[in-house]
Amino acid sequence: MRQDLKNISARVSSIAPFHVMRLLERAKQLESQGHQVIHMEVGEPDFQTPAPIVDAGIAALKGGQTFYTPAPGLPELRQQIAAFYLERYQATVVPERIFVTPGASGALLLALSLTMDAGQEVLLPDPGYPCNKHFIELLSGSARAISIANHPKKKLMPEHIRSHWRNNTCAALVASPANPTGTTYSVQEITDLHLACRENGGVLLLDEIYHGLDYEDNISSACQVSDDIIVVNSFSKYFGMTGWRLGWLVVPETLCEMTNRLMQNIFIAASTPAQYAALSAFQPDTIKVLEQRRRCFQQRRDYLLPQITELGFKPLGTPSGAFYLYADCSDLADNSYSLCETLLEKYHLAITPGADFETTSPEKFVRFAYTTDMDKLKIAVERIRQWKRDTSE
Amino acid sequence: MRQDLKNISARVSSIAPFHVMRLLERAKQLESQGHQVIHMEVGEPDFQTPAPIVDAGIAALKGGQTFYTPAPGLPELRQQIAAFYLERYQATVVPERIFVTPGASGALLLALSLTMDAGQEVLLPDPGYPCNKHFIELLSGSARAISIANHPKKKLMPEHIRSHWRNNTCAALVASPANPTGTTYSVQEITDLHLACRENGGVLLLDEIYHGLDYEDNISSACQVSDDIIVVNSFSKYFGMTGWRLGWLVVPETLCEMTNRLMQNIFIAASTPAQYAALSAFQPDTIKVLEQRRRCFQQRRDYLLPQITELGFKPLGTPSGAFYLYADCSDLADNSYSLCETLLEKYHLAITPGADFETTSPEKFVRFAYTTDMDKLKIAVERIRQWKRDTSE
Repeated sequence: MRQDLKNISARVSSIAPFHVMRLLERAKQLESQGHQVIHMEVGEPDFQTPAPIVDAGIAALKGGQTFYTPAPGLPELRQQIAAFYLERYQATVVPERIFVTPGASGALLLALSLTMDAGQEVLLPDPGYPCNKHFIELLSGSARAISIANHPKKKLMPEHIRSHWRNNTCAALVASPANPTGTTYSVQEITDLHLACRENGGVLLLDEIYHGLDYEDNISSACQVSDDIIVVNSFSKYFGMTGWRLGWLVVPETLCEMTNRLMQNIFIAASTPAQYAALSAFQPDTIKVLEQRRRCFQQRRDYLLPQITELGFKPLGTPSGAFYLYADCSDLADNSYSLCETLLEKYHLAITPGADFETTSPEKFVRFAYTTDMDKLKIAVERIRQWKRDTSE
Repeated sequence: MRQDLKNISARVSSIAPFHVMRLLERAKQLESQGHQVIHMEVGEPDFQTPAPIVDAGIAALKGGQTFYTPAPGLPELRQQIAAFYLERYQATVVPERIFVTPGASGALLLALSLTMDAGQEVLLPDPGYPCNKHFIELLSGSARAISIANHPKKKLMPEHIRSHWRNNTCAALVASPANPTGTTYSVQEITDLHLACRENGGVLLLDEIYHGLDYEDNISSACQVSDDIIVVNSFSKYFGMTGWRLGWLVVPETLCEMTNRLMQNIFIAASTPAQYAALSAFQPDTIKVLEQRRRCFQQRRDYLLPQITELGFKPLGTPSGAFYLYADCSDLADNSYSLCETLLEKYHLAITPGADFETTSPEKFVRFAYTTDMDKLKIAVERIRQWKRDTSE
């Protein structure tokens, strides 16, 4: 009866492994040998979920909240998210447009399913979040990654959209703040992107999962710009709920009914304990903790950015949000992947090579995640300095 | 700027709403008017998650387990699932073949993504779980529902597979116990289905999410038959964890690496608190509770099956698992949907019309879910009896 299954789908067989996974595995080996590895490759905040959220999750479990919720999410949670848009962004979003999802991953799958058919194309900035391409290919579409390195702002711009839009293009997917660059888009920039998509009959999808982890004044949400932009958000990053797997999607009113049907069919609903826990995410004592953490991330960025610049890395764009610096290392090394390997093997510092984020010039870039504390960041900088000394000898 | 978004994808616009949703909404209205509605439409156990599982979830939260797990799941949970296959089914499944997913919904999406490309076709029994069709269409495949009503066993059989397999067919997806019929497949039947798929170069996908809620001796898992069958399972039904959204997928060894990559990209990982909670799902005190509940479901079936038969409903196949009876009502009513409406409006009993499960003869069938207690089931039977009296007058 044993006979190997050969018929894996083409859609899946094109998924390349993340380079960071091999580095992570090696990092674990080094740690098991007693080395202290500094982790600057991890795309996850190093803070636990704030106590009020955890307590609300525990209370929900004690109260027997273990059954399915309605497919679009708990009505009171959708209302709270709507209230949050009004309070923080002065944006009116009716709760009916908000769908609570299994992580932002679930929201991305919904957003693309709603707007893209097989054979259609979605425009993305290159570099960008690596999973986006695979969501699109999972749905038999194609991802068109547009290099942003040559634009002064290092962001996807309306002129990119206008020049790359083709007959089968249906959408552009942009993140603000962006992974890996940490760049953010202004209200005007979002408006211009939206108009460029609409004049082509397409739709703008905005990934705002790093909102709240932004370090300049008044980041803008696409919900301030138009009800017709599809917005992805998450409780993972700012709210510190990664492992709970909870996100949300904001859709235009015309898509609410179909989004509801799609959710019923492909998710049933998001996690019930997570949704009850998230009911405490917007209360003042939680926000106070989150704002402290935001300042903490800001301090790390403010320390790290000049340090790595001084070391010879050249950041791409202005990293004003998320917890990443994406930098050109070509003045320091021929190949970013070898650099990452050397830093890990000999200096026990884990960072991520550009190959996980872009196809344009992967060998030129590395990503630093400042998801570790200041003391460790200082050690990391010292280790890079040591590597420079060692290589210049 | 306001302008309606018209470009919803074709893949989504074909999703019809569940009829049961309209009935549910109406049921809520009736309840708000003070009527006692008996719910026999709900596909969710009426039992809370067992205490040891809830306690483990609470302990995990108190212990700060709020970060991402590895994409395929907690290693100790994968080991426990493997041990469960050995103990309950005498089947050897190495933990590497087990992937912990966001609900069985996540497992179904993975299973179909791994095996089906756009334009390919999957064979399904008609009637069946309604979401399967939409997962397939989400992935730009087509679902071919094969009527099982004319086969004596009321199940998808190897001869169905052989006669319906076409060039673009890639898989058959079958559930045991099945929703809505409650029928189960023997080792021999699974073996024959598997061979029929393999001789055509395809793969058998087996949905075993109602395993454990089976009421005859020794239900068989596809894991006993072959390592090359892809198996979907869940902590929702037998383990009583619906709202936690946790399932698992068993894949052939050759697919492990690609399943891992796909999971990293489309889910990141399943819920962390849910996975820690599930570590207590297999322990003796939990299993004791679960087996009591299983007997409870069995008592309900043993009561309900002869009652509805005597009332004139004709069950399709032998309902030996899950918590459903699917029955032909054509001797009693011209149209199952009107029957459901009448029973709800005038007798305050909610059941589901066949249209939610099949395309062959939807007007002939209704589904009874025995997810409510014996006292209510007795009232339900009495209400149907009253309806019969009223209509025969």
